[in-house]
Amino acid sequence: MRIALDAMGGDFGPEPVVQGAAEAAEQLEGLEIVLVGDRQQIESCLTAAKGPAHRLEIFHCSQVIGMDESPVVGLRKKPDSSITRCWELMAGRTVDAVVSAGNTGAVVGAGLKTRLFLKGVKRPGIAVVLPTLKGPCVLIDVGANVFPKPEHLFQYGVMGSLYAQHILKIEHPAIAVLNVGEEERKGNELVRETHALFESSHLRDRFIGNVEGRDIYRGTSDVIVCDGFVGNVVLKVCEGLAEMVFTVAQQEVLGRLSAERDLARAAFQDIVQRYDYSAFGGAPLLGIDGICIICHGASGGLAIRNAIRVAANFADDHLNDLITEELNSSPRPAIAGE
Amino acid sequence: MRIALDAMGGDFGPEPVVQGAAEAAEQLEGLEIVLVGDRQQIESCLTAAKGPAHRLEIFHCSQVIGMDESPVVGLRKKPDSSITRCWELMAGRTVDAVVSAGNTGAVVGAGLKTRLFLKGVKRPGIAVVLPTLKGPCVLIDVGANVFPKPEHLFQYGVMGSLYAQHILKIEHPAIAVLNVGEEERKGNELVRETHALFESSHLRDRFIGNVEGRDIYRGTSDVIVCDGFVGNVVLKVCEGLAEMVFTVAQQEVLGRLSAERDLARAAFQDIVQRYDYSAFGGAPLLGIDGICIICHGASGGLAIRNAIRVAANFADDHLNDLITEELNSSPRPAIAGE
Repeated sequence: MRIALDAMGGDFGPEPVVQGAAEAAEQLEGLEIVLVGDRQQIESCLTAAKGPAHRLEIFHCSQVIGMDESPVVGLRKKPDSSITRCWELMAGRTVDAVVSAGNTGAVVGAGLKTRLFLKGVKRPGIAVVLPTLKGPCVLIDVGANVFPKPEHLFQYGVMGSLYAQHILKIEHPAIAVLNVGEEERKGNELVRETHALFESSHLRDRFIGNVEGRDIYRGTSDVIVCDGFVGNVVLKVCEGLAEMVFTVAQQEVLGRLSAERDLARAAFQDIVQRYDYSAFGGAPLLGIDGICIICHGASGGLAIRNAIRVAANFADDHLNDLITEELNSSPRPAIAGE
Repeated sequence: MRIALDAMGGDFGPEPVVQGAAEAAEQLEGLEIVLVGDRQQIESCLTAAKGPAHRLEIFHCSQVIGMDESPVVGLRKKPDSSITRCWELMAGRTVDAVVSAGNTGAVVGAGLKTRLFLKGVKRPGIAVVLPTLKGPCVLIDVGANVFPKPEHLFQYGVMGSLYAQHILKIEHPAIAVLNVGEEERKGNELVRETHALFESSHLRDRFIGNVEGRDIYRGTSDVIVCDGFVGNVVLKVCEGLAEMVFTVAQQEVLGRLSAERDLARAAFQDIVQRYDYSAFGGAPLLGIDGICIICHGASGGLAIRNAIRVAANFADDHLNDLITEELNSSPRPAIAGE
């Protein structure tokens, strides 16, 4: 397997990215990684990282789309950016996967531009795996598509469910729509129509209806679909809230202890490690004819290594074949007004 | 001041509601509370609660809209429900305020039906106060309006900002739009047009642009506007996540301690008490010609008492006069397409 890794993406520049790549190449046999970015910078990081040199190739490019840059402007003005080049390598079938911790909007935008969609897929969506009180849960879409149609959300249900089944090994994943209440008639037009689509589809037996925000972490369902605007806000709110709760809890609890303070501190650190979603290894952009794993901007070497591993699993499980098969073999659910 | 309290609202029936009312009447001078609901049930709770009887009146009604009932169906089929009666009392100017921990959709729906809006207000919105690392922040709307127009969100900015200034005592509240990125061109049409409205309005100096989900708890801004769908999901996700983080952190930390376990447990309990938004005393439905405070369904006696206090402060500060004045005196911002 051959992966194009955006060496210039992320909040900390090429160092942790190259480090993660070197570790992944060391651990995963048969893996070739193409480091896409500025040759000079990558080479100096590689000297420090010491990976198996013959499996770490460099594809030089001269431009970088900044983390806070407008994706639209960045993609237009920087044709030699690492993100654009990664996708071109995949479109040309030189690599099987793209992994990037760069500007998410630009990674998605470049992907949409290639139109490298699986047969039958209307719009790709980003799936994240969230920890819950009852195990992992797939939330899709968290930002690829902020103007979705009901059919897009329905397809996210199909793809998210296959992801839950084959990557997370959840046998019969329960699918739900994120809404402001559980009743069928709740919410805006988009979620109501999406609800109706699921009810009339081959997934109806596994569709449990609407769930509310508070149900996500209670683990009420295994796959939750939502529009990319809502999903993105939710994901980032969670990041901010978890950060606050931890800061406050650590301060308060550690401040009151003395002899056992170090024990408590270690417990807090373990929780952070266990639940930190940025360490989970990135979120797949599902629906792409190829593999695209999007990492958190704050990814360190470990997160990058995990993301590369996720890309490898994705290929091993032939998830794309399963998605294409299910989308194209199932009778298309009736869409209101058609 | 006279308040209609929905005695039948909430997850736990009339007991905590009546208890909270009795305590509030005891503490707040000059307050009259009309307990709206089933006379017999209220009377039996009142015997236990022991408040100043002459300031706790009962308005009997025979129906209750259940917490999980469809608001639309409930309001249509139950004209003698406690929620409907509370609003009728306010529409008839028999009371100054409505306080309810009942079915939120029904409380809002009944309010919209009365059309008891302040002059100039297009649609009322629910404002909640969230704790952040830098102090309280107003999030508006969290569920009254799931199909808002840009002008509604703009008005939420005006009302939320006056609320922050006069109730939370924040001198020059910074206002932001909740979005999926900070750039002006990010997000869907609604947030982009809202952004433009603020930029061209008298609030432009206090408008700091878009904030992302993670910024809410970092305390980047004092007032955040969003559509009711997004706001409701966000609020409930936070509830679920905070619950999970606490459950996990307590288990993990307390499980490792021995001699100092009780100290740590006390610290956790203090944090819950300090940050539990259900204890904050309810969220105002801003834009109503009158006062409407919506409480969390799980409100206990303390939360109800606090909600009654919020209603009293609201009246003391003449917030409605300030809202009407600002909405009707400021030049209306230009709306695209008009």
